[in-house]
Amino acid sequence: MVEKDLKKQREQVMKQIEALGFQLLKEIENKGNPHLDIPVRGSSNVSFDEKNKKIILGDKVAHRYLFNVSHARKFMQTMLVASYVQKDLLKDNLTATLRDLYYAKKRTIEGTKEETIEEQKESDLAIVDFEVALETFRERLHLRAEPKGRMAGDVVIKDFVRDRESVIDLSKLGSGGLAIPSIVEQIEFKKVDIDYVLVAEKNAIFDRLNEDEYWRKNKCLLMTTAGQAARGTRRLLQRISTELKLPIYCLTDADPYGWYIYSTMKYGSMALAHESERLGCKEMKFLGMSITDIENYDLTKVTIKAKDVDIKRAEEIKGYAWFKTKEWQAEINKFLEKKIKAEIQSLSSKNLQYISTTYLPNKIKEQDFLP
Amino acid sequence: MVEKDLKKQREQVMKQIEALGFQLLKEIENKGNPHLDIPVRGSSNVSFDEKNKKIILGDKVAHRYLFNVSHARKFMQTMLVASYVQKDLLKDNLTATLRDLYYAKKRTIEGTKEETIEEQKESDLAIVDFEVALETFRERLHLRAEPKGRMAGDVVIKDFVRDRESVIDLSKLGSGGLAIPSIVEQIEFKKVDIDYVLVAEKNAIFDRLNEDEYWRKNKCLLMTTAGQAARGTRRLLQRISTELKLPIYCLTDADPYGWYIYSTMKYGSMALAHESERLGCKEMKFLGMSITDIENYDLTKVTIKAKDVDIKRAEEIKGYAWFKTKEWQAEINKFLEKKIKAEIQSLSSKNLQYISTTYLPNKIKEQDFLP
Repeated sequence: MVEKDLKKQREQVMKQIEALGFQLLKEIENKGNPHLDIPVRGSSNVSFDEKNKKIILGDKVAHRYLFNVSHARKFMQTMLVASYVQKDLLKDNLTATLRDLYYAKKRTIEGTKEETIEEQKESDLAIVDFEVALETFRERLHLRAEPKGRMAGDVVIKDFVRDRESVIDLSKLGSGGLAIPSIVEQIEFKKVDIDYVLVAEKNAIFDRLNEDEYWRKNKCLLMTTAGQAARGTRRLLQRISTELKLPIYCLTDADPYGWYIYSTMKYGSMALAHESERLGCKEMKFLGMSITDIENYDLTKVTIKAKDVDIKRAEEIKGYAWFKTKEWQAEINKFLEKKIKAEIQSLSSKNLQYISTTYLPNKIKEQDFLP
Repeated sequence: MVEKDLKKQREQVMKQIEALGFQLLKEIENKGNPHLDIPVRGSSNVSFDEKNKKIILGDKVAHRYLFNVSHARKFMQTMLVASYVQKDLLKDNLTATLRDLYYAKKRTIEGTKEETIEEQKESDLAIVDFEVALETFRERLHLRAEPKGRMAGDVVIKDFVRDRESVIDLSKLGSGGLAIPSIVEQIEFKKVDIDYVLVAEKNAIFDRLNEDEYWRKNKCLLMTTAGQAARGTRRLLQRISTELKLPIYCLTDADPYGWYIYSTMKYGSMALAHESERLGCKEMKFLGMSITDIENYDLTKVTIKAKDVDIKRAEEIKGYAWFKTKEWQAEINKFLEKKIKAEIQSLSSKNLQYISTTYLPNKIKEQDFLP
């Protein structure tokens, strides 16, 4: 991806928006009822694609008409989104947040007491409608989500902020590491001297492994999601997996919340089924912690009793199509039977560097992963 | 601060811990009652130092004795903290989180059913006791807090991860910026080509200003706290203010939560009164948004109605000694009278770059700040 390609990509989206506009104009000129075709996003149209390992939207499509009392308001809001994306963002190569769009397009419609957008929830929904209708995703519409996550490793990237180019060596960023940006479409991988990516749920693990120079000694790119992964982080993981064909190993606490963080990165989610194509990372593997690790690494004394809410969550997850492998069913059953969970940091009960010197190298050497 | 100084600083803390140990040993040898002197941290011992503009601890000290049934457990826990800091962290030049310490020192005391530490809350309190008793702060004990925040600007820093040195040019980190680490004691400022620091409450503002190259055009270091400021960010701001003597301007939403974020960075907080010395940044100024900005910048149409909880919070804040200046009393009164608040991002209702091209340059040119 070079700068020219980015420009081309932007122009392509602009052409798509223009084409949609012309289609609507034509319907108006023909005294027709202008309409948009928007894939249905409800659970009735969401399923798990076994073959491609992702949560996807089906082919149900809703038709939204301008001249329909129950569609008109949403139709207008989708047009406001289209206009903002085209004229305020893509044309000038600027990006904005969903909140910026809301503020920019909220106003009282002349001669009425009606607001174009009452609450941000409305414009947010219109944005999703628009990205789904265009078969694109919001980062390509230059809409930013809240960023989160950091990374370090023997990787050199090129990043662009509008026309300003930065070459960034991720092995030379000290104790902080690079903050993973909201939009990563423009990132180019220049030098990649690693064998795999290790993505940890917690900042504390990133800091531990960075201090131990784990990433240099083990030739990996170290990342943390700092909780549930942000869109930028998910997309970057997908790009590394598909473009660089590198294995991605995920490290979370041994509990249903950890499994959920993992599965969202790997398969996508029900709520964002239309995004799995761009945000899912189907080759990702679950390194740990597993409930079996608790015995294998002698951590029984530092486990935590599962709460009712954990049990309930585990039972739900057990039923998900993407957790139906025999390995995950066994893992979840073991959790339900023992009713205990464990944190990655419980490894610190051995010694602080046990995770770097023993646990991770062992797990990777033995390829002791869950699918 | 060069590497040698860091080592000296570490050795100094180790000597302090050793001295404390010898004092206790001596008391034991003299068949005395070993004790620790720990400044009281409750509200009865917290006050606002008008002259030095910070929330501080008074001089009330509690004596904690080993041979006192109600002190013994806490005494033991403080010793566990001391041992961990000395032998596991400082000696090997490693850092850890509060949770690592908890896991490392939690165990069943031999021959009893008693746990050394039941819940992390206990060891956390023992850590604070220990840092207050030593008149130091937890970063110098090599204990990390959760990091948050990012920065960009024409500043070159040197950072150390144990003995690994990184020279980092904060003007070449693309759209992400440098993630501000948990501990910033080791950071050296190598080249500082800026006139001030602008610290924004929100990631969205950082991204906007970074995209507009605001920091280059206006010669500032741009930071975001991403909400309530983390300890690392607060300490870094203090270091820039005191060591580099640069002005720090703060940018939050115009609401009581924004004021609170500002005042915590500037004066410290009641709960961490013992830390104001190292985390407060008394020269910081509140750039905005102010309630007056709403009129001055014609934002009345994009305000938000204040909730009851906002009103209550504002009334509380109005009573704080550090908000007793006439400017802040007028600001809070205006809020209580109008009962509206506004977000920084409401400036996007003008146009996306209004904040970079108009609002910030104006405010700074006119030095239109609150104290």
